[in-house]
Amino acid sequence: MAEEAAQEQPSPTAPRPVRCIVKLGGAAITNKGELESINEESLRSACAQLRQAMSESDGDGAPGKVLGMDWSRRHGDPADPAVDAERIAGMAGLGFDTNFIVVHGAGSFGHFQASRSGVHKGGLHSTLVKAGFVATRISVTSLNQEIVRALARGIPSVGMSPFACGWSTKQRKLASADASQIIQSLHAGFVPVLHGDAVLDELLDCTILSGDVIIRHLSQLLSPKYVVFLTDVHGVYDRPPTDPNAVLLREIEVDDNGSWSIVKPALLQGNNKGVEISVAAHDTTGGMETKILEAAVIARLGIDVYITKAGTEHSQRALKGDVSTDSEDWLGTIIRSSK
Amino acid sequence: MAEEAAQEQPSPTAPRPVRCIVKLGGAAITNKGELESINEESLRSACAQLRQAMSESDGDGAPGKVLGMDWSRRHGDPADPAVDAERIAGMAGLGFDTNFIVVHGAGSFGHFQASRSGVHKGGLHSTLVKAGFVATRISVTSLNQEIVRALARGIPSVGMSPFACGWSTKQRKLASADASQIIQSLHAGFVPVLHGDAVLDELLDCTILSGDVIIRHLSQLLSPKYVVFLTDVHGVYDRPPTDPNAVLLREIEVDDNGSWSIVKPALLQGNNKGVEISVAAHDTTGGMETKILEAAVIARLGIDVYITKAGTEHSQRALKGDVSTDSEDWLGTIIRSSK
Repeated sequence: MAEEAAQEQPSPTAPRPVRCIVKLGGAAITNKGELESINEESLRSACAQLRQAMSESDGDGAPGKVLGMDWSRRHGDPADPAVDAERIAGMAGLGFDTNFIVVHGAGSFGHFQASRSGVHKGGLHSTLVKAGFVATRISVTSLNQEIVRALARGIPSVGMSPFACGWSTKQRKLASADASQIIQSLHAGFVPVLHGDAVLDELLDCTILSGDVIIRHLSQLLSPKYVVFLTDVHGVYDRPPTDPNAVLLREIEVDDNGSWSIVKPALLQGNNKGVEISVAAHDTTGGMETKILEAAVIARLGIDVYITKAGTEHSQRALKGDVSTDSEDWLGTIIRSSK
Repeated sequence: MAEEAAQEQPSPTAPRPVRCIVKLGGAAITNKGELESINEESLRSACAQLRQAMSESDGDGAPGKVLGMDWSRRHGDPADPAVDAERIAGMAGLGFDTNFIVVHGAGSFGHFQASRSGVHKGGLHSTLVKAGFVATRISVTSLNQEIVRALARGIPSVGMSPFACGWSTKQRKLASADASQIIQSLHAGFVPVLHGDAVLDELLDCTILSGDVIIRHLSQLLSPKYVVFLTDVHGVYDRPPTDPNAVLLREIEVDDNGSWSIVKPALLQGNNKGVEISVAAHDTTGGMETKILEAAVIARLGIDVYITKAGTEHSQRALKGDVSTDSEDWLGTIIRSSK
């Protein structure tokens, strides 16, 4: 029986460590005010920076060299897409370190459907919750589809919905989250693209699983070298970033028992309560507290977490892992272990 | 260890047997001649017939009563969709027997990408195959998204990609295909919507897993009462259905050792070789031989298989399970066990 079970569920091991887990924040890649609207420019820029971070050479990656892997018919285009199979077959490889995982938030996708129906509260006996579950999944998977397409300009990305992966929760806490297919996909040279999703819950019937919780879980399982959260502001502030007096927290230290303290700026040192930390108030899945909490759990594992603004030189450096606590010219928040 | 493994992977049992597994054939729901083009009318009709078959009442289901579960913004519509949450919350339930599973083919989605790159042959060291794998998945998952949306007019459908579910093959034969998430989704009252997909292969690196193989596997696991294949012709013919002399095979019997014989029409009785059976030559995933072979495996389990034309009174009856070998006025092919 034990042997059989072991055979059924092999424990796959990653031969190379995962280099980076990236969160494409909902606030960064969608237009917050408009239902189901992608911030095309920000998404394109994030994808290009990711491609550059994966690139084994340090070059800029001339645009002509990008291998498009979305061979779908363009909307309104009557002709089949041109795929130069011979040229692609002749390529030695992608020249990429593809050991990345991408997780994206929902932004203006899914929230409308989830909040109108209360999917996060559970209760599938309610017709409204059941319909809302379906509606939420349609919305977030359509965003996933577009992000996979955008990444596929050069990056061998494969969409993987946590719900379809069989991930589920118990009283909103992750209960079942088998990562073997994610690991197999990485082995095969693909970049898994996951997302916040509506999932089944053992006690509540259903709930919403946020992208931040997914990243924390994958970090615990796969020990990436670093984790990057791309958002629409420069990092974590001591109060809402719209406040003109808001101060960017440059460095946060997490100790063994999980409590955290601000290291930089020095004037806020020792202030780890009372500070109303905020990244982006509208990024509601889990909210800011969840984000800091999950980032703190990751940092405790000895994995540096970089929170920074998408589409900037700072995000480019973060994605390359080219950030240290001495980087005075880097704008963002580093959350790291005190050890 | 055995206990731990058992805890990690509970063996879920379906309390109610699955009523029906439906194949929406690629030939029926897409326009074969045109890349990535959905046959909207045929898809809409198939979804309406499915809704009616699931309906617990025998009524026609007045259009006003259909509960839309796709709450996405319509293309070009600046306004948020109208969701009457109060009315929906007040509904007693969907009034549906949702114990159905839908599997769809690729039709004019995915084939172009798969055949240009040779994904079915495997070999991910080839840049062309790797790019083609990504392109194929983008194409078939975009079709899945549209089919889930179409079904969501009344049916609580949830898309589940076999690749994301962790399904994989070994030398093109299904090797790992955990159905626990599909069963959990059925328990929760959802209709899983799977599809032919590009998957990882233990020996070949990757290949294409056809919808027909998925249906056979799910039938073996879940013992549905009956299985329906909807296609673009009336059923299985003794030669290509475009041939004016083609004869529709009304009833095929499969015996214990898997060999099959034609029962109706009587003039073809005993003819189980030499007959060039054909449903739809352009439905290339696996081809006709695979389809008959998979259907025969299902029939041997004692599960009737109905192959018929989508959007007809015959498909409506098949979906309701209202077909027997005495049904002289039903047009289609019944494949059943000789026992």
